[in-house]
Amino acid sequence: MRKLSVIFFAFILIPLASVAQQALSGNTDIISPEIKDDNTVIFRFLAPNATEVKISGDWMPVQAWTHTSEVMKKGEKGLWTYTTGKLPSELYGYYFLADELRCSDPNNVYQIRDVATVTNVFIISNGKAGLYNVNDVPHGTVARRWYQSPGNELVRRMTIYTPPGYETGNTKYPVLYLLHGMGGDEEAWMALGRASQILDNLIAQGIALPMIVVMPNGNVSQEAAPGESVTGFIKPIMQLPNTMDGKMEETFIDIVRFIDSNYRTRDNKAGRAIAGLSMGGFHALHISRYYPNTFDYIGLFSAAISPDAKVHSKIYSDIDATLAKQKSNGYKLYWIGIGKSDFLYKQVQEYKLKMDSLKMLYEYRESEGGHTWVNWRMYLSEFVPELFR
Amino acid sequence: MRKLSVIFFAFILIPLASVAQQALSGNTDIISPEIKDDNTVIFRFLAPNATEVKISGDWMPVQAWTHTSEVMKKGEKGLWTYTTGKLPSELYGYYFLADELRCSDPNNVYQIRDVATVTNVFIISNGKAGLYNVNDVPHGTVARRWYQSPGNELVRRMTIYTPPGYETGNTKYPVLYLLHGMGGDEEAWMALGRASQILDNLIAQGIALPMIVVMPNGNVSQEAAPGESVTGFIKPIMQLPNTMDGKMEETFIDIVRFIDSNYRTRDNKAGRAIAGLSMGGFHALHISRYYPNTFDYIGLFSAAISPDAKVHSKIYSDIDATLAKQKSNGYKLYWIGIGKSDFLYKQVQEYKLKMDSLKMLYEYRESEGGHTWVNWRMYLSEFVPELFR
Repeated sequence: MRKLSVIFFAFILIPLASVAQQALSGNTDIISPEIKDDNTVIFRFLAPNATEVKISGDWMPVQAWTHTSEVMKKGEKGLWTYTTGKLPSELYGYYFLADELRCSDPNNVYQIRDVATVTNVFIISNGKAGLYNVNDVPHGTVARRWYQSPGNELVRRMTIYTPPGYETGNTKYPVLYLLHGMGGDEEAWMALGRASQILDNLIAQGIALPMIVVMPNGNVSQEAAPGESVTGFIKPIMQLPNTMDGKMEETFIDIVRFIDSNYRTRDNKAGRAIAGLSMGGFHALHISRYYPNTFDYIGLFSAAISPDAKVHSKIYSDIDATLAKQKSNGYKLYWIGIGKSDFLYKQVQEYKLKMDSLKMLYEYRESEGGHTWVNWRMYLSEFVPELFR
Repeated sequence: MRKLSVIFFAFILIPLASVAQQALSGNTDIISPEIKDDNTVIFRFLAPNATEVKISGDWMPVQAWTHTSEVMKKGEKGLWTYTTGKLPSELYGYYFLADELRCSDPNNVYQIRDVATVTNVFIISNGKAGLYNVNDVPHGTVARRWYQSPGNELVRRMTIYTPPGYETGNTKYPVLYLLHGMGGDEEAWMALGRASQILDNLIAQGIALPMIVVMPNGNVSQEAAPGESVTGFIKPIMQLPNTMDGKMEETFIDIVRFIDSNYRTRDNKAGRAIAGLSMGGFHALHISRYYPNTFDYIGLFSAAISPDAKVHSKIYSDIDATLAKQKSNGYKLYWIGIGKSDFLYKQVQEYKLKMDSLKMLYEYRESEGGHTWVNWRMYLSEFVPELFR
């Protein structure tokens, strides 16, 4: 027995990461990022051979579509450091540039993919981004589940959030259908969108009602997010076939039917909301009017509005008439959010004029900034409390 | 209308990754890794300013606990390339070293965290690693769900795989409890372990019976995987308090009760299996003997065997007697797998001798290699077909 214990001690003392012959780089004492109580953040990056190391982060100004960068300071043994000013509460992305080579932070395992780019993230949580944290509140269940879409002749994957208490009660819950943007998929709202954290926190605070949140994949030619289907570990691309040609709208009924037949839902208009960002806002707009008696709550977050003129689909052939139908059927909330510097700002203003001309009521939210997850997380946090009242 | 369409075209043509002011690095035409039909793999890495770029991958020899590296070849415009020989079917990790600075592959978004290190991965799928692919077969549902653990006075997170058909039928399913190793958590078997793919594929082939797979977090002082609990985006560490002091074994009943009361399970010994890798093998050994009439199937994958002599817990006070009890109660399969070069090899041989002396039957699988996910994925693929027959 003693002999075994000695061997076992070796097991305890040797870090398994090396024993398991896995890479060692993260296995250091370096802490990065280090978030201080005053909301300044220290970054540390070991690069002894680099001549110059810069950092680029979401809190820096934007020039020519990208954030600027700043030079880090070289210290002992090639440890480069950089300290920010006090940052507003938010989820931020950042990366290093070692002699212009983009590098992730090896001391921060938290990275989120956005389309084809993986970026380190951190949260300054003492403020509005506290909603994006996992807090000490009851947590919903998040399931990745496959459904049959007869309209697409595919079995497809979706992400489903059921609120705390769903599994143990008999209550029927309302459903928010939450749609991603171009280049996104059924993971997008869970990743940079922080949807499950936002819902957990708003429900716990009594600010939102418990609801099911369904996050389908809006690229209907795609079975699932990159890496999660038979196509394997492909490089994600921005636009797939059949994303904005009417097919998503036409086959959305497959998703609603699946949810209503597999979950305890309030399966009527009063129990359904639909919202989306960018392309997902486009989908929410057109789905809600194409099925004009299906959703009492509609949310357009930085939405694209008008179909491509080259697309000929019955879905887009009768926009004004279906909007009028949607109006006459009635709805409880039509929520439109857009950032002042969003490249879709003008489209959204023109859509507001159209709604005005149709005497359709809406709630309008104009924020700072542009076409970013900063806005989409905020819009979700503001939209959800208004639902199902 | 025409005006809107023109604006909309701009939306289509500008990649959203830049519009959204996200980073651009992945947004190139470079394909890496490129897997050829003959199982050779080409890597490409753009690093114009680097003097030397190397690649290190899991298929290279191991020296001093780590894989060796090889120099890549510099081509036009600073594009470095490297081509492997024909690789056996497997899931591989790799990284680049640009002037000794470790870099991930910016053209490969598929990265998996193992403890505190994030590594790019790819799969050579025409062979045994085809089981690790998402194939065109029915897929189970994977849920992240929280449960109350009275024994730990915590609400804790687990990952639950339910097989295809679970939601639509009334069948009761057997349950495999699948435990991770030191430094792991409830995500480990889903990430490098490829558990849901292995189960989907083996069930579809009729090689394994449909079953529920429960992947709890074996660090009982921890609520959830790093980043998924109130502790926020902390740096993962190798060993947490209360991982191997008897507390996991003692409170395992909380997990079994939760599963049996929330899922349609075969809630008896014949319907339960428990298996784990390394520390999880240790847990499987001690849980199955501490609850000696609970599991008909036990799997030890590269298992640690003996408790630390400094730990004094009732759980480890009566090992031989409880093993004898487990034997007399009966079990159907006791499966032990170990790699020839595993640092735990000798411990496992001594445990076999103990089992021999107790006349406990077991199935023994000795593989090449050491304490690696290559073996653990393979052991799972071999163990699961033997369950619940």
